[in-house]
Amino acid sequence: MIGKLALPAIRELIGSGDDKTLGEVVNRWHPADVAELARHLDRREQNHVLRLLEPARAAPAFAYLDLDIQRRLLQSLPESETASIIGAMSADDRTTLLAKLPQSQSERLLDLLSVEERVIARSLLEHAPGTVGRLMSPDYVDVRREWTIAHVLDHVREHGQDSETLNVIYVVDEQNILIDDLRIREVLLAPLGARVADIVDDRFVSLKTTDDRKTAVEIFRKYDRVALPVVDAQGRLAGIVTLDDVLDVADRVATEEIQKFGGLEALDLAYMNTPLTVMVRKRASWLVILFVGEMLTATAMGFFEGSIARAVVLALFVPLIISSGGNAGSQAATLIIRALALGEARPRDWWLVLRREFASGLMLGLILGSIGFLRIALWSAVSTMYGPHWILVALSVSISITCVVVWGGITGAMLPFLLRSLGFDPATSSAPFVATLVDVTGLVIYFSISLFLLQGTLL
Amino acid sequence: MIGKLALPAIRELIGSGDDKTLGEVVNRWHPADVAELARHLDRREQNHVLRLLEPARAAPAFAYLDLDIQRRLLQSLPESETASIIGAMSADDRTTLLAKLPQSQSERLLDLLSVEERVIARSLLEHAPGTVGRLMSPDYVDVRREWTIAHVLDHVREHGQDSETLNVIYVVDEQNILIDDLRIREVLLAPLGARVADIVDDRFVSLKTTDDRKTAVEIFRKYDRVALPVVDAQGRLAGIVTLDDVLDVADRVATEEIQKFGGLEALDLAYMNTPLTVMVRKRASWLVILFVGEMLTATAMGFFEGSIARAVVLALFVPLIISSGGNAGSQAATLIIRALALGEARPRDWWLVLRREFASGLMLGLILGSIGFLRIALWSAVSTMYGPHWILVALSVSISITCVVVWGGITGAMLPFLLRSLGFDPATSSAPFVATLVDVTGLVIYFSISLFLLQGTLL
Repeated sequence: MIGKLALPAIRELIGSGDDKTLGEVVNRWHPADVAELARHLDRREQNHVLRLLEPARAAPAFAYLDLDIQRRLLQSLPESETASIIGAMSADDRTTLLAKLPQSQSERLLDLLSVEERVIARSLLEHAPGTVGRLMSPDYVDVRREWTIAHVLDHVREHGQDSETLNVIYVVDEQNILIDDLRIREVLLAPLGARVADIVDDRFVSLKTTDDRKTAVEIFRKYDRVALPVVDAQGRLAGIVTLDDVLDVADRVATEEIQKFGGLEALDLAYMNTPLTVMVRKRASWLVILFVGEMLTATAMGFFEGSIARAVVLALFVPLIISSGGNAGSQAATLIIRALALGEARPRDWWLVLRREFASGLMLGLILGSIGFLRIALWSAVSTMYGPHWILVALSVSISITCVVVWGGITGAMLPFLLRSLGFDPATSSAPFVATLVDVTGLVIYFSISLFLLQGTLL
Repeated sequence: MIGKLALPAIRELIGSGDDKTLGEVVNRWHPADVAELARHLDRREQNHVLRLLEPARAAPAFAYLDLDIQRRLLQSLPESETASIIGAMSADDRTTLLAKLPQSQSERLLDLLSVEERVIARSLLEHAPGTVGRLMSPDYVDVRREWTIAHVLDHVREHGQDSETLNVIYVVDEQNILIDDLRIREVLLAPLGARVADIVDDRFVSLKTTDDRKTAVEIFRKYDRVALPVVDAQGRLAGIVTLDDVLDVADRVATEEIQKFGGLEALDLAYMNTPLTVMVRKRASWLVILFVGEMLTATAMGFFEGSIARAVVLALFVPLIISSGGNAGSQAATLIIRALALGEARPRDWWLVLRREFASGLMLGLILGSIGFLRIALWSAVSTMYGPHWILVALSVSISITCVVVWGGITGAMLPFLLRSLGFDPATSSAPFVATLVDVTGLVIYFSISLFLLQGTLL
C-alpha cells in the first residue's frame, strides 16, 4: 500500500533530482514495498530508484518483482549493478529467475556470479522443473549431536547470517546425513548446558529433492511446519524449503487448477502481463477442441431434423435442457476436482461418489423437472403456444431434464476420476469440457424420450 | 502416510488389547499422523487410541482432526478427557472449534476450562467471524526496549513454553503498545550484551483484529513473514497470527472461489463429510436460479418459432453457437476472477481488460467461425443436408459464432468487475452464470443475423 500511496511524492523526488532524500526514503522501506512502488514506475524511474538502494536492499526488492519487470531491468541495468543484485539474491529466488530466462541470458548472468555461487546455482538448476530441488535453498545452519546448546547459539551467531531461516536448525552427522531438525523453540527452551543429543528425538519429516512441488505443499499443509529439510537419495541434507515459498506454490497450484477448470491452459504470467498472442494461443487450443466436440450436437440434431420439422416446439427447449445438464455437471466436477486436489477424496472412493451423485442428481433433477413442468403448464393455461398436446410436451421436457441432470452430475463427478486414473490432471475436466460431453448426450436423451412419448400425437 | 500404512497393524493391536505397545507407538508419532490414523478408524477405535495418548499429545492430534470427527469425539469422550484436551489446545485452534459448535455445546465446553482460559476463549469469540481476531493466538513472547539480548534469551527460556511461536518476539511499551516485531534471527545474530533498543527499527507490519482474513492472506503473501502481530484500535498488541493458519485460510479461500465458480454455494465441510441434504440445498439454490434464467431461452426461441418452422436447419446449430459463447465467457471469467483475487488486476483496470478481451475474443471468434464455415461447406459438398442456400446458412452460422464468442468473452470478463463494484464477491460470476447470460443473448444474436441474411431465400 505504501508504495502506491507515496507514488506522487516519489515521482516529485525523482523529478527534482534530490537523490539523497529519495535514497533515504526507499532504503527505509520494506523490500516488498519498494517492489510495489517499482511496479507503478516506468522503466527509467525503476532504474533510478533501484540504483539508489543499498545492495543488501536491492536484491530482496528485486526478488519481489514480477518476472517481466525483472527481465526488463536485467537488460537495462549496467553489468556491475546486475552482478551485485544477482550475487546478493537468495539462492532459491535466483534459481526461479534463472530457470525462467532464455538459456543465453541465464548463462550471461551465471558468469557474473562468484565461483562458489555459480557452482551452487548450476547444481540447483540441474533439478527437474517442478521438483522440490528447484525450490530449495542451500543456506541453512547445521549442528552436531555432541554440541552443547550454548555452543549451538554461538555457532548460530557466527554462521547464521546467510541462512534462509533461523527458525529451524539441522542436526547432521559427519557424512552430512540428516539426523533431526530442531525448531528454534526447542533450542531456546533448553538449558544452556544441555547437549543437542538430549533434545534430538530422531523423528523428522523431510522432502526429497525429486519430490513434486505439489507434494511439498501437501506435507507443509499436513505437518504445520515453517521450514522442511530436503534430502538426496542417500539421506544427505541438500537444502531446505521455507513455508513462504510454499505459499507461493500453493497459490500458483490453485491458479492453475482454476484456469484449467475455466477451460484454458494455465498461464505462466499474470493476466495483465500475458501478451495477447500467448493468451489467444492458450485459449484457442481448448476452445477449438470443445468446438469440434460440440459440432456433434449439430450432427445429433440432424438425426432428429424430421421430428423437429413436425414438432418445432421441441426445438424451443433444447438450450434449457442441455444447459441444466451442463450446470449440474459443472457443480459435480468442481466438488470432485477440489476434493481430489486436497486429498479429501481418494481415487478408490469413486463408487461412493457415484452413489452420492446419483442420489443428489435425482433430487436436483426432480426439483428442476417440476419447475419445468409447471412453467409449460402455466404458459399453456394462458396461450396456445404449446398446442393441444402440451401435457405430453411438458412430460417429455420435465422427464428429460431430470434424466439429463442426473447424467450431468454423474459425468461431471466421474470424469475427474477417469482422467486421474489415465494419468492426466483431474482439473482438465473443465466446466466447458463437462458441458460439451453432456450437451451431445443430453440431446440424444431428450429426443429419444420425446419420440417415445409423442409418437402418434405430435410425431 | 504413516497413519494409513500402519492401519492393519494398529487394528491388530487394538484387537489384541495390548494397550501398552499401542500407547508407545502412537505417543511416538507426529500428531498429524495420529489424526490421519484416526480418520481411518471407527468411532470406538478412535476413542480407544485417543485415550492412550498423553494429554500433551492428544490436544494437538485432536486439533488436526476434521470438525465432524471432533464433534463426534466430544460427545463420546468422558468429561475429564474432554476437559484435558480442550484445556491443552492452543487458543486459536480452540476458537475455531468452539465457533463451529452449537451454542449449547460450546457453552458446556467453555465451562470445562480454567477461569483464565475461559476469559481468553470468550474474548476471542467476541471477534466477528471471518476476521483476524478469530484466527489469532494470545500466546506470544513480549520484551522491552531496554532489555539486553542475554536477558531476552533468558526470558524466552523461562516464559516461552506456551508461546505459539518463538520465531518472532514482540517489543512493547508499558501500555502494551506494539513497538516492533523481532524475527528470532535478529536476536540470535546480535551480541549478547546489545540491547533490544539497538536492533529495534520501529518498522513493522501488523494486522488489525477487525481485518478480514483474506487481508491477512494478502499481507503474508506480500511480506513473506512466518507470523504477524495483531493490534487493537489503540495499537495495543492483542495477539499473533502464524503462517500455518494462514495457509489453511488460503486453501479455504481458494476452495470457496473454485466452488463458487463451479456454480454452487461454498461447502463448509469436506465433500465426503457434507450430508446429502446440505449438499442438495447448496447446489439447488444456484441451479434453480440458473434454470429460471435459462427459461428465457425458451421464450427467446419462441419469438423465432416461425423462422425455425420455415428453416429447421437453423435449429441444428443452436447448441453449437450458444456453447461457443459460454466457453469463451467461462475462460474470460476464470482469468479475471483469479486476477482480481490475487490483486494482479484492480477494479480500475476494467477498461484495459475490456479492450484486451475484445481483441482476443475477435481472434478466437474468427478462428471458430472459420472452422464452422468449413464444416458446413464440407458437408454440403457431399450431401444436400443444408439445401441449395448452404452458403448463406454457413455465413449466418460463422458470423454468429464470431459475434457470440466476442460477446461471451466481454460478458465473462466484465461480470466480475460489475459484481465487485456492487459489493458482491467477483467469484459469484460462475461458469454456469456466465453461460446462462450468454445463452439467452447469443440466441437473439444468432436469429437476428440469420433473419437479416436469409430474408428472401430461406426465410
